[in-house]
Amino acid sequence: MEFRSAERSDVPAILRLLADDDISRARGFGVVPEEVDAATWAAFEAIDADPNNELLVGDEGGEVIATCQLTFTPGLSRGGGWRMTIEAVRVRADRRSGGIGKQLMAYAIDRARERGCRVVQLTTDKRRVDAHRFYASLGFAASHEGMKLTL
Amino acid sequence: MEFRSAERSDVPAILRLLADDDISRARGFGVVPEEVDAATWAAFEAIDADPNNELLVGDEGGEVIATCQLTFTPGLSRGGGWRMTIEAVRVRADRRSGGIGKQLMAYAIDRARERGCRVVQLTTDKRRVDAHRFYASLGFAASHEGMKLTL
Repeated sequence: MEFRSAERSDVPAILRLLADDDISRARGFGVVPEEVDAATWAAFEAIDADPNNELLVGDEGGEVIATCQLTFTPGLSRGGGWRMTIEAVRVRADRRSGGIGKQLMAYAIDRARERGCRVVQLTTDKRRVDAHRFYASLGFAASHEGMKLTL
Repeated sequence: MEFRSAERSDVPAILRLLADDDISRARGFGVVPEEVDAATWAAFEAIDADPNNELLVGDEGGEVIATCQLTFTPGLSRGGGWRMTIEAVRVRADRRSGGIGKQLMAYAIDRARERGCRVVQLTTDKRRVDAHRFYASLGFAASHEGMKLTL
């Protein structure tokens, strides 16, 4: 398993991973269109051009089987410490529970250390009880409410 | 009350707002040093130079009485929609409960709309029960666990 930054050619596979999820389906994200639309390409280009965003993939012999996005944010709290936010974590359905998520998170947390971050943070839907257990096993504390406003 | 991007000269006042908080004090952030240290200046410069970060202040006749930081993040989920994350929200202790937080959030959410974000998100310490009520009154749903790992 190689973890690396996503390339343009990985985008369709990443979209399939993002869509293959009960909660995403409930948000209407269950169907992946045949063609990636312009807004999604633009988002990929914005991530790719931004040194404070990294879209990661787990690549096994050329197949993308895991993904997450890292955002590095400077802040005045905690002595000017940076924080890393993890979003859009997915492992392909047929490869879950095999330790790939753990490897992906270990790689992500190493990136936070390399960037000198003081805190790694993420939010996870309250219905994802297995995910909470998984992140707790990695040392994450469920200390905060994660609040969302859809516009 | 004028809401605007923070300038370098606002940094000491913002640090005082960040420190004047029971939970921050418990993290050892209760004492503001006389001089802003190099790491904090570097963080301010990083925010100021990044088009995807905005440090806001509420300025009343030249006095900074409220602050928050906005981070705009592109992503492949939700049709390539951007999200806005709000961090480090503070209103000066002697001016709380007077509607300033609500004005600050209204201004922040307008910025999210101007930037075309689909979602506004924040995490708030589970001990801040008043804050949860406040954000719920603005339409935020406490749908997620906010998980943190300190490095």
